[in-house]
Amino acid sequence: MDTITTVAAMQAEADAARCDGRRLALIPTMGALHDGHLALVRHAREQVGPEGHVTVSIFVNPTQFGPGEDFDAYPRTLDADREALLASGAGVDAVFAPEAREMYPFGLPPLATVQVAEMGWYLCGASRPGHFDGVTSVVTRLYLACRPHLAVFGQKDAQQLAILRRMTRELGFGIEVVGHPIVREEDGLALSSRNRYLSPEERRQATVLSRALFAASHAAGQGERSADVLRSAMREQIALAPQARIDYAEIVDADTLLPADTLNPQGASGGRYLAAVAAFVGETRLIDNVTLRVGDSGRGD
Amino acid sequence: MDTITTVAAMQAEADAARCDGRRLALIPTMGALHDGHLALVRHAREQVGPEGHVTVSIFVNPTQFGPGEDFDAYPRTLDADREALLASGAGVDAVFAPEAREMYPFGLPPLATVQVAEMGWYLCGASRPGHFDGVTSVVTRLYLACRPHLAVFGQKDAQQLAILRRMTRELGFGIEVVGHPIVREEDGLALSSRNRYLSPEERRQATVLSRALFAASHAAGQGERSADVLRSAMREQIALAPQARIDYAEIVDADTLLPADTLNPQGASGGRYLAAVAAFVGETRLIDNVTLRVGDSGRGD
Repeated sequence: MDTITTVAAMQAEADAARCDGRRLALIPTMGALHDGHLALVRHAREQVGPEGHVTVSIFVNPTQFGPGEDFDAYPRTLDADREALLASGAGVDAVFAPEAREMYPFGLPPLATVQVAEMGWYLCGASRPGHFDGVTSVVTRLYLACRPHLAVFGQKDAQQLAILRRMTRELGFGIEVVGHPIVREEDGLALSSRNRYLSPEERRQATVLSRALFAASHAAGQGERSADVLRSAMREQIALAPQARIDYAEIVDADTLLPADTLNPQGASGGRYLAAVAAFVGETRLIDNVTLRVGDSGRGD
Repeated sequence: MDTITTVAAMQAEADAARCDGRRLALIPTMGALHDGHLALVRHAREQVGPEGHVTVSIFVNPTQFGPGEDFDAYPRTLDADREALLASGAGVDAVFAPEAREMYPFGLPPLATVQVAEMGWYLCGASRPGHFDGVTSVVTRLYLACRPHLAVFGQKDAQQLAILRRMTRELGFGIEVVGHPIVREEDGLALSSRNRYLSPEERRQATVLSRALFAASHAAGQGERSADVLRSAMREQIALAPQARIDYAEIVDADTLLPADTLNPQGASGGRYLAAVAAFVGETRLIDNVTLRVGDSGRGD
C-alpha cells in the first residue's frame, strides 16, 4: 500500500494501472476512518475484483468548510487510518494523501470551481452555503488525480451523492458513481467521523435522528403518502431529545432533491424519495437519511 | 481520419492511443475552420510528433452564446472543415463532432458548470456575461472526452486562453495548454470565423483593430509606459473607422487580466501585458490583441 502525495505521481500510477487493463476504484474520504468507510473500501474491492486497483484518498478539504465550522478541529489521523486500511482486508493499493498546496496550487480560495446549480442550495446547502461547491470542486480534483473507473461514496451523505452523480454524468467524466448503504451502530446511529465529538449523554440522545427516519419509513410502509405528515412525524421524534436542535427534517425526491408534496410512484425518481434529517446534538451537527420507495414494492428501506 | 460523435467512443480511442504510448493533442474548435485553425492543427502535430494522436473537436457550443448573439447564424460547415483538415497535411487522427445532446445529456442549461472567478468578469466577459462559464464548462467536457496530453488554443482569444490556462492548472487536469500566435491577413486583420459576416466596406474598415494594436505596440516599443496613453492611442485609431463601434480598448496584465496603470517589468506577469480590443464593425463583433513585453527585451510583438 503506497502513500502518494502528489497529483503527478498519482496520475502516473493510475495511468500505468489503466494500461495494464486493471479497473480502478476511488474512495474519496477526509480520513478519520470508521467502519462505514471500510465498508466502502471493501465494496470497491468487490467491484473491481482482485486484479483491480483501489485508491483511498484522504484529504480534509478546506473549501467545503464554512466560517465557524470544524475545519481546524476535524480529526487528522493518517497513521491510524493507514493501519485501519491495512487491517481491513480490502487490499488497498494506494492512499492518496496530498497537502492542500498540491490540491490548490494557486492558494485559497481557488478561482476555478465546479458547481452543480440548485441541487446544492437547499437541505444541507441552506445552512452550509458554498459547502457543495467545495465538495464538487475537490472531487473533480480527486477524479483528475486518481483517474478511476468508479468512485464509491456513502449514502449517508445523500445530498452529496446525488450532486456528485449529476456532476459526474453531466460533465462526462466516464466514471461510475457507486453509492453504498449507510452503516449504523446497533442502536441505529449512522457512523460518522463527527460522532467522536459527542459526550456520552449526547451520544445517547443522538439516536433520535435514526428513530425519526425509521418512524417516517414505517409510516410510509403503512401507506402514508403525505410528505407533511411524514415531516411532522420526524420532528416529533427529534423533539424528544432535549439536547437536539433540528436543522431540517425533509422529504425530497431522491434524484432531484426537490421537496415532495405526496409520495407518488410516478414521481421524478420513479417513486424513490429521501427522508433526510440534520440536527445539532449539543454543538455537533449530524445528518442521516433513509430511502422511501413507493410503487412496485411499496416499502421503505 | 475518423469522425467520432460520442463521448464514449472518443474516450475509448483516446485511452487506446494513450496505452500505445502515443502523445495526444486536442484542438478545440467551433468549426468554420480557417488558416488560423489549420496553423493550430499543424502546431499540435509538431508538438506530438509523427507518432502522436491529433484530435480536432468541432462543436458549436450553445452555452457560450448569449441571448441575441449569433448562435443560430454561426457557420456550420462540417464537410468543408473535414476537407480542409485532410488537405492541411497535419495528419489529423480524429474529428470529434458531437451533437449537443451528447455534450449536455441532461439538456440545457446544464446544472454542472465549471467557472473561473474574476478573470471572466471583465473585457469580453463584461459585454458577454456567462460567456466564459460556457467556455470553461465545454472545454472541461472536451478534455474529459478526448483525454489529451496537450491542448492548443489560438492567442486571438487571449482572455479565453488565460482563463483556460488557469482552469487547467488549478483543477489539475494534467494537460499542457499551448497558445499559438495570431494568424493575420496581409493587411493585419486577425483571422476569425466571423470575418465572413463582414460586407466589403466593413471588411476594409475592420483593419482599424489591428492598426490600433500595432500603434500601442509601437508606442510601448518607443518607451511609453502609461497604460492610459496607450488606451487613448488605440481609441483614436478605431475612431477613424465610421462603421466601428468600440466595446473596449484595454491594457491588462497578461496572466491575471487585471487593468494596468503602468507597464512595469516587475509586474505580476513579469512585464508581459496585453493590448486588447473589441469592436463592432457593422453588426459583427471582432476582437484582437497583441502582447507587450517590457523589461528584458523591451519590445512588443
